[in-house]
Amino acid sequence: MAKFEVCAKLDVSVPGHQYPIIIYRNGLAESGIIRELVPSGQVIIVTNQTVAPLYLDAIQSVLYSCQCDKVILNDGEKYKNQDSLTAIYNELLAKKHHRDTTIIALGGGVVGDIAGFAASTYQRGVPYIQIPTTLLAQIDSSVGGKTAINHALGKNMIGSFYQPKAVLIDINTLSTLPEREFRSGLAEMIKYGLLTGGDFLEQLTQALQKGLDFDSDELPYLIAQCCQVKAKFVEGDERETGDRALLNLGHTFAHALEASTEFKYWLHGEAVGIGLYCAALLSYNKGILDITVVQLVEQMLHYAGLPHKIPEFVDLQKLRDLMSLDKKIKNNCLRFVVMKKPGACYLDDTITEDCLHNTLITAVGGE
Amino acid sequence: MAKFEVCAKLDVSVPGHQYPIIIYRNGLAESGIIRELVPSGQVIIVTNQTVAPLYLDAIQSVLYSCQCDKVILNDGEKYKNQDSLTAIYNELLAKKHHRDTTIIALGGGVVGDIAGFAASTYQRGVPYIQIPTTLLAQIDSSVGGKTAINHALGKNMIGSFYQPKAVLIDINTLSTLPEREFRSGLAEMIKYGLLTGGDFLEQLTQALQKGLDFDSDELPYLIAQCCQVKAKFVEGDERETGDRALLNLGHTFAHALEASTEFKYWLHGEAVGIGLYCAALLSYNKGILDITVVQLVEQMLHYAGLPHKIPEFVDLQKLRDLMSLDKKIKNNCLRFVVMKKPGACYLDDTITEDCLHNTLITAVGGE
Repeated sequence: MAKFEVCAKLDVSVPGHQYPIIIYRNGLAESGIIRELVPSGQVIIVTNQTVAPLYLDAIQSVLYSCQCDKVILNDGEKYKNQDSLTAIYNELLAKKHHRDTTIIALGGGVVGDIAGFAASTYQRGVPYIQIPTTLLAQIDSSVGGKTAINHALGKNMIGSFYQPKAVLIDINTLSTLPEREFRSGLAEMIKYGLLTGGDFLEQLTQALQKGLDFDSDELPYLIAQCCQVKAKFVEGDERETGDRALLNLGHTFAHALEASTEFKYWLHGEAVGIGLYCAALLSYNKGILDITVVQLVEQMLHYAGLPHKIPEFVDLQKLRDLMSLDKKIKNNCLRFVVMKKPGACYLDDTITEDCLHNTLITAVGGE
Repeated sequence: MAKFEVCAKLDVSVPGHQYPIIIYRNGLAESGIIRELVPSGQVIIVTNQTVAPLYLDAIQSVLYSCQCDKVILNDGEKYKNQDSLTAIYNELLAKKHHRDTTIIALGGGVVGDIAGFAASTYQRGVPYIQIPTTLLAQIDSSVGGKTAINHALGKNMIGSFYQPKAVLIDINTLSTLPEREFRSGLAEMIKYGLLTGGDFLEQLTQALQKGLDFDSDELPYLIAQCCQVKAKFVEGDERETGDRALLNLGHTFAHALEASTEFKYWLHGEAVGIGLYCAALLSYNKGILDITVVQLVEQMLHYAGLPHKIPEFVDLQKLRDLMSLDKKIKNNCLRFVVMKKPGACYLDDTITEDCLHNTLITAVGGE
C-alpha cells in the first residue's frame, strides 16, 4: 500500500467557525483523520455510483465502530436535484439520524453540493465533512461552504452558505478520475491564476505547457495554492456580498452555457473554460484588457485541452436570456466579473447589451 | 378606518444581525413601515387561501411601486411540505426574482416557516419579513428565525436557522382569527408563563381566568412579554445548542401527538396544551415538581379552553416511538424539558422508560 503523506494543511476562518483543509496522498483509510472528526456514533456517507466502488469501503472501514449509513446517488450534474436531496433526507430519517450525526460527502462537486445542502437543512443543520475526489471539487466546490441543488429554471438556484467541519483532499483519488474530468478541473485552476496573476499564474502556465497529471510533482502545490486563494476570498466575504463574487470570473457565461444545453453537453469546467475566454473577450471589448491576455487565456485553455469557443449550435439569444437569472444581479442589472489584467478583476454592472452581444458573436466558432 | 397605533417595539440581536419586532394595531396599510423594509424593486408575498382575501390587498397597495408577486398556499399544517416550498421556488424563478428580492410571509406559523425556509435557501438566502396573523405565530414562530417544512417521517425535520429582517405584528389581524386558533395560541403563552414564572405567570393566569380576547386591553402587553421572553432565549442561543431548547417545554410530547395523528386532529397549540400537562406530570413523576403546579397547568389550560389529557384513541407505544425522532436527542438519549417550579426548567436526558410510560398512562383520559 502506498505511503500516507500529508502535503499541506490550511485553515479557513469565517465568523464563528474555523476549519482545516488537509491535502495528502494515500490517506482515505488512515483511521486517525476521519474518525476523530465524527463525534457521535452516527454518520452517513453520501457518494455516487462511480465513486462508491472505488473508495466507499476504505471510508467505511475507518468508521466500523459507528452506525454508518450510505446514500449512493446517480452520477452526473443532472442528478443535482430535489430527488437526490430527498433521497438523502429519507435515509437520514428512516435510519433515525439525530442532530449530532455527521454527513460525509465523498465524490465530486455534485455530491459535495447536495450533501452540504442536506447537512445545512436536515434538522436545521448538522455537521458535514467534504472528501472531494475530483480536481474541480478539490480546488473549488469543497472549499467555502457554498451548497446547492439545481432547479429546472437555473443552476444552483436553491442552496445555502454552510461551512464544512473539514475538507480532506486525498490527491491520490485523482488517479481514478477520467482524463476529461481532470482537464475540466484545470479550468478553475486557470481562473485562480487569472484572479491572482504574478508568480502563480506563471508557474501554472509552465506546468500546463509541460503537461499536468495526477502524479505531477507540482500538483499538490498548485492545489494548495488554489485552496489558499479561495479561502482568502471566502474569509473576506463568506456570503458573497462583495469580493467573493470575483470567484465567478467566467461563470455568468458558463452557467448560461450549461443551462442552454440542459447540463448535458459540457462538464462544468469545460463551460468555465469557454466562460473565461468570453470574460477576457468582454474585458477586451470594453477596452480595459490587452489583447495579449485574451491570447494567454486561449493558450492556457489549449494547453489544458479545454475548449474556448462557443459552438455554433448555441442559440445566442437564448444564452443572453439565461444570463438574466444570474445570482450576481442587483437591481435588475447584469453584473460581470471583468479583468483589467491578471490579478486585477472587478465587478462591472455597466456592460451594454451591444458590448455583450459583440462578445458573444466573436466568441462563436469551431476550435 | 381604525387608528394606527404602535403598542411596543423590541429588538432581537443575534451575532451579525439585529432586527425589530413591532407590535401595533391597524397598521397593515401604513405605507411607511413595510415599504422602507423592501430595498429593491422586487417583492413576493407568500400567504394562504384563508388570509389572502383578508389582508393581501392592503399589503399589495403599500407596495404598488414594486414588482409584487404572490404565492397563495393551501391553508393547513399538512401543506407545510416540499410541494408548497417548490411552488414558492417556481414562482420566484418564473418571475426572475434576484438575490436582492424580499419575501414577505403573511399568515400563521405554517406560512412563516415555509416562506422563511424558502428565503433562507433561494439563491442561498434572500431577506424576508414576517407579518404573522395568528396568535401562535405572533408570539412564537415568527420570532427567532427557525424555519422548516415537515417530512412524512417527522415534523420540522427540514429547515434552517435564518433570521427575518423584521417582524410586524398587527394585533388587529387577530379579529379575523377563528376562536379555536386563538385559544391554540394561548398554549404557547402558557408555556412562556411556566418558563418565566413570577409576575408574568400571575398576570397571565388572571387574564386567562377573566377571559382573553383579541381586543382585550392586556393582549398587546402579554404578546410583547412573550416576544421578549422568546427573544431573550434566541439571543442567548440562536442555534439551539443550549438553553433555547427550553422553549420546547411540552413540545416533545406535542410533536409526537401531532405526528401520531398525521397532523390532522389537533391544532399545534392544542397538542402543546396536552404536551405542557404531560411535561408537568413527568416532572411530578420524577419527583421534582409539586403537584399544585400540575394542577395550575391543568387550570390554566382549562381557562384557555384547551385540552390537557391524551385521548384514549392514541396508541401510546406509537407515541413513544415517534418521540425517538425528536430533534433534541443527543447520543441516542431522549431529552425532555422538565420543571422544578415555574421559572426553573432544565433539560433532562435521564428520564427512564418507566417514568415516561407512567406519565403517558396517567395523562390518558377524557376531559
